[in-house]
Amino acid sequence: MASKSKILIIGGTGYIGKHIVEASAKSGHPTFALVRESTLSSPAKANIIENFKSLGVNFLIGDLYDHESLVKALKQVDVVISTVGQLQVPDQVKIIDAIKEAGNIKRFLPSEFGNDVDRTNAVQPVKSAFDDKVKVRRAIEASGIPYTFVSSNLFAGYALPNLNQFGATAPPRDKVVIFGDGNAKAIFNNENDIGIYTIKAVDDPRTLNKILYIRPPNNIYSFNDLVSLWERKINATLERIYVPEEQLLKNIQEAEFPVNIIYALGHSVYVKGDQTNFEIEASFGVEASELYPDVKYTTVDEYLSLFV
Amino acid sequence: MASKSKILIIGGTGYIGKHIVEASAKSGHPTFALVRESTLSSPAKANIIENFKSLGVNFLIGDLYDHESLVKALKQVDVVISTVGQLQVPDQVKIIDAIKEAGNIKRFLPSEFGNDVDRTNAVQPVKSAFDDKVKVRRAIEASGIPYTFVSSNLFAGYALPNLNQFGATAPPRDKVVIFGDGNAKAIFNNENDIGIYTIKAVDDPRTLNKILYIRPPNNIYSFNDLVSLWERKINATLERIYVPEEQLLKNIQEAEFPVNIIYALGHSVYVKGDQTNFEIEASFGVEASELYPDVKYTTVDEYLSLFV
Repeated sequence: MASKSKILIIGGTGYIGKHIVEASAKSGHPTFALVRESTLSSPAKANIIENFKSLGVNFLIGDLYDHESLVKALKQVDVVISTVGQLQVPDQVKIIDAIKEAGNIKRFLPSEFGNDVDRTNAVQPVKSAFDDKVKVRRAIEASGIPYTFVSSNLFAGYALPNLNQFGATAPPRDKVVIFGDGNAKAIFNNENDIGIYTIKAVDDPRTLNKILYIRPPNNIYSFNDLVSLWERKINATLERIYVPEEQLLKNIQEAEFPVNIIYALGHSVYVKGDQTNFEIEASFGVEASELYPDVKYTTVDEYLSLFV
Repeated sequence: MASKSKILIIGGTGYIGKHIVEASAKSGHPTFALVRESTLSSPAKANIIENFKSLGVNFLIGDLYDHESLVKALKQVDVVISTVGQLQVPDQVKIIDAIKEAGNIKRFLPSEFGNDVDRTNAVQPVKSAFDDKVKVRRAIEASGIPYTFVSSNLFAGYALPNLNQFGATAPPRDKVVIFGDGNAKAIFNNENDIGIYTIKAVDDPRTLNKILYIRPPNNIYSFNDLVSLWERKINATLERIYVPEEQLLKNIQEAEFPVNIIYALGHSVYVKGDQTNFEIEASFGVEASELYPDVKYTTVDEYLSLFV
């Protein structure tokens, strides 16, 4: 491979962004993080900023909403990865505009890092959230900007430490609430691994204008099998309380924002099986663990052992 | 008062919308709910639709994203109340456009029903959510459409049944997590009362082009006082675990969407005191319990008694 491309991350101090910045810097890509002045001095972000500094990350002062700063930052790099939060997803049109003006960007990875939003049975309000990402996909395609959409499925750190028990801070040891019949399969990926796979994709011609699915075989579990795995680890049997789909849809309907989003994401993933209910076809997608078999990803089995 | 205005509610089957539809119908306003065909037959909404039918609510088939249906619905009413969900807040520009075309609307109440978004110390991602509402306010003002913005503060049903203990389904009986020092004052309003106050405002010249704040004196509590009230009710003393602001900001930073929204809302309300840290001035606002002293609202004290 030729010299590694220079990567700009927008939203790099966020939940998944920091893992992507870290993976980029550790893999030898010249790595740039677009940050506000206020972020650099924010106590809440001090640890992240310190870590970035130790990794040799370059800070570029700027803002999604400051077009000049965006264009200036883009001109210094080859690849742009956006990891802005869900509420800023629609504003990524500003990145598209800036990329068009800069004219030098070889690949754009917009903020995705979840379900494939083009293949979903999500209900509201998650449908709206997914539609926001779909609109960005269509705008990128229409612009002709080279892209990769990363469908990384569930964040392990979000779903596994409490086995999707809303608000709990540890996995259950006596009873567990299961959405639907517990047989739909979901995919649980460690955030560090998502960063590593994402960075491997940026210079890879096989991921050009494709969806990169992160579906490592050992991280695909039905909720029932996940509970069974946990039961074996703690040598106990949990009471399984099933919430039928019709009841879950009522719960979504009755919950207020943003709790309704948590339930509706669960419906899409755990009831509808939206992360696994379709085949990846070569015309639109590639699978990360097949492309990069050398990555020793953290398995669900290993991850859950942390909580025994 | 002259004959009661005809009211259209957009988003009427949602969390707060259903209370507003109910209050409208019960108060004698000819009441119209804009619904999709699919909503009328949705099992998850069957109870709500049945209740609306029993109250004499008129269903108009349509959709925020179907301009023709929107204009047609607007032409049949005098007042429009939007209670669309947070992710659809930006799309209310479509309602503004339709109101301009219809030309007959005497008052528009956009989807607000929370903090006053023009007076806030919210951090991301809630800052973005509030900014979306701010943009709608400015668009309405610029359009010249008569409006009322309802700042109804906290939904009691969201905050009180578990005393803001994330994910819990009942109030705590041994220990309680408190954001900040617990001294900032928040406002907890029963959803039915929010519906009643909102409907009283629609034909009231005193609320024209103003913010209607719902701040009934008996519903204003610091979190410490709220816990003390609960302790007296259950005759127990809870261990109070305080989360300093700096820690909470880190937690917001580290949490994934949408959990970060729950924490960031808590920061704005319980740490910054954004619901009570300013005076209502006649130039921009009026207070609901002063305007409508006849409303016998549910107090926090009464509400918490439900859970003893």
